[in-house]
Amino acid sequence: MEQENKLPRKPIITLITDFDTQDHFVGTMKGVIYSINPDVDIVDITHKVASYDIFDAAFALAQSYRFFPSDTIHLVVVDPGVGTTRRPLLARSLAHKFVAPDNGVLSLIYEREENVEVRHITADHYFLNPVSATFQGRDIFAPVVGWLSKSVEVDKFGDPITDFIKFTSPKPKQVNESLIKGVVLKVDKFGNILTNLRPEDLPQLFAENPPPFKIIINQQEITRLNLAYSMGKPSELFAIVGSSSYLEICTNRGSAAKALNVNRGAEVGVILGSTESGSGSQDPI
Amino acid sequence: MEQENKLPRKPIITLITDFDTQDHFVGTMKGVIYSINPDVDIVDITHKVASYDIFDAAFALAQSYRFFPSDTIHLVVVDPGVGTTRRPLLARSLAHKFVAPDNGVLSLIYEREENVEVRHITADHYFLNPVSATFQGRDIFAPVVGWLSKSVEVDKFGDPITDFIKFTSPKPKQVNESLIKGVVLKVDKFGNILTNLRPEDLPQLFAENPPPFKIIINQQEITRLNLAYSMGKPSELFAIVGSSSYLEICTNRGSAAKALNVNRGAEVGVILGSTESGSGSQDPI
Amino acid sequence: MEQENKLPRKPIITLITDFDTQDHFVGTMKGVIYSINPDVDIVDITHKVASYDIFDAAFALAQSYRFFPSDTIHLVVVDPGVGTTRRPLLARSLAHKFVAPDNGVLSLIYEREENVEVRHITADHYFLNPVSATFQGRDIFAPVVGWLSKSVEVDKFGDPITDFIKFTSPKPKQVNESLIKGVVLKVDKFGNILTNLRPEDLPQLFAENPPPFKIIINQQEITRLNLAYSMGKPSELFAIVGSSSYLEICTNRGSAAKALNVNRGAEVGVILGSTESGSGSQDPI
Repeated sequence: MEQENKLPRKPIITLITDFDTQDHFVGTMKGVIYSINPDVDIVDITHKVASYDIFDAAFALAQSYRFFPSDTIHLVVVDPGVGTTRRPLLARSLAHKFVAPDNGVLSLIYEREENVEVRHITADHYFLNPVSATFQGRDIFAPVVGWLSKSVEVDKFGDPITDFIKFTSPKPKQVNESLIKGVVLKVDKFGNILTNLRPEDLPQLFAENPPPFKIIINQQEITRLNLAYSMGKPSELFAIVGSSSYLEICTNRGSAAKALNVNRGAEVGVILGSTESGSGSQDPI
Repeated sequence: MEQENKLPRKPIITLITDFDTQDHFVGTMKGVIYSINPDVDIVDITHKVASYDIFDAAFALAQSYRFFPSDTIHLVVVDPGVGTTRRPLLARSLAHKFVAPDNGVLSLIYEREENVEVRHITADHYFLNPVSATFQGRDIFAPVVGWLSKSVEVDKFGDPITDFIKFTSPKPKQVNESLIKGVVLKVDKFGNILTNLRPEDLPQLFAENPPPFKIIINQQEITRLNLAYSMGKPSELFAIVGSSSYLEICTNRGSAAKALNVNRGAEVGVILGSTESGSGSQDPI
Repeated sequence: MEQENKLPRKPIITLITDFDTQDHFVGTMKGVIYSINPDVDIVDITHKVASYDIFDAAFALAQSYRFFPSDTIHLVVVDPGVGTTRRPLLARSLAHKFVAPDNGVLSLIYEREENVEVRHITADHYFLNPVSATFQGRDIFAPVVGWLSKSVEVDKFGDPITDFIKFTSPKPKQVNESLIKGVVLKVDKFGNILTNLRPEDLPQLFAENPPPFKIIINQQEITRLNLAYSMGKPSELFAIVGSSSYLEICTNRGSAAKALNVNRGAEVGVILGSTESGSGSQDPI
């Protein structure tokens, strides 16, 4: 993003958790942060990550972080291993800082950012005292981002490590010349189905004269590619390149996920050059 | 609202969307705004507008905007036409600024505020680049309110137009001397039923010696007008003048909407001068 | 919490309500506050208190307030008596201020803080004008915390009172030498069951050589005490001392409340010294 000037700006801390908002958890973490640094802006990305769902949190982070100013601190607390020896991490890329448990939730950052330096946070004088075994978002992570936002240097929190947990995000598979298989990464609030297929995985589809194609998902075929949600006819299913540059399956003003009975993890196949509606052929997926 | 002094205050941007909070959408828009203007306060009005529901968003805006300081910027992104040629608008009243798609979502502002100047936002150098076809809340609307909050003049964003889309909010109908018909505008979180009837539509009811009356809704009769929710007996249905000066149908510590099986759009009739519990008479609605 | 320096910091107002977030209510209250004092940070604790549930709100406040900086103003609007003569209160402890209706919602503060001074807010020139009978969060409470955050002295709002409403939080009962009975205070988002039993109520359990024990809840027995959620085997139910220092009943990555079909108010018994799995003995609860 553009920057107007080089004056020190108010630091921003973003939050992603699976705490939801009916309990006091998120508010209490903010209290801890403001107690350490009152001069900070705290931005909720989402607290509705599915409980314990590390990929869902990683995805929300990957979609949002780069739209924040440089030097923003991104805190992710989705932490099924809270209270065990899993390590708290501080990662730094060129423009952003990330704080999270060492459970793979920063994997998409490791994938997208170059030269990410990862540290094991061991400086427990920055933690609340005592540290509970069940709410380290309050006792460890919130105070760490509070102090970090006060410009405490990253090396004060602990030493670099290289053996942090990292998962590989699911990649599309070129099965043969005309079939590429992907997977559903997410269903959004509107019921749009985000796949892991990007235009660069399907260059023919976005060439000047695209071939006919079929997208196969849960045994149904989609053969239209639209440029905007509202271009779809009522209840028609179609594909679109969404705002994250992933191919999405959608329907105008409705839930494609419900219509197709599809959820995260479902397979998606794209067949290029064969929309002869050959319903007699066997299902390739 | 009162103002303490005339010093420039930190600008406020309010947000109304149908994005809900389980995705990264709202957080990402805030990142875009803060990247342009770190010195702003962003206030969520609601992100739980029913999907694509322009009236619901217009109503939330109409209920809230005037309680904000002057110069507040109100952004509404309920945008079923995203990615098409529907225009992004910037509207200015005497005290407030509004940014929204040209789909009627500002209609209640046009109705309530005098001398609203409406502009078609065309200055795409204020947009993110590229602009996606599916998330213009991030790519067009957030950056526009960001720059607007930095005191960029409204005429820099585009020229005034007069052919913007405007719906007329449903008005009560005087059917005859003793019957007035209205409609349900909203069911709130508590199950209170907000109608479009205001005290000025029913002056007799609020006169010193009000006549007997019946409110008919979904074939049930309500004959009590209370001054506070808690004055109702358990499970009794009654009317009240709510905080938006609309007549509401309520029940003490319960959902009137559930009890009456009523939703937005339902008809409401008020019969003045006839509570002789004449159950033999035909239903007037 | 630690304080870096003694410079005046930006005041913080926290909010707890049962308004949820689909209506404009919370946003409108923030507009009123910012109109009076633009230089304030507003932090949502939760707006998902169960409707009219005073204990639930009192509990969220008790869990969160002490993690905020001193001088924070905590506003609670769970107000089934809105529009009646129930009084608006301003309470002050050594480090915090609290504003709420006089319905007992501050009871846990009266219990935990020493020397709480409670005032009846009568200075209606600080209210919006007119005051509605249905939304005093907007018309009375928001403006009061706005002015309070501008350092208006507490005695300007009204006189001290001593006859405010106060409930006593449910205390564990020592039935006999080996049986102590408690109650479920809350089920959190993850389905963890928070009881009112604290380690100090069960010192034997936390001694060096703890005796065998059984926790009885909804006719089921729990005989394990773990140190972290993730130490539990799949679907195993166990006890843990949670982040609020209450004994919780949990299951690793699952909802103990669903597994046990238990809700707030359920009885919990702890039997010390008798885990001989004597299923022949009669149920003590």
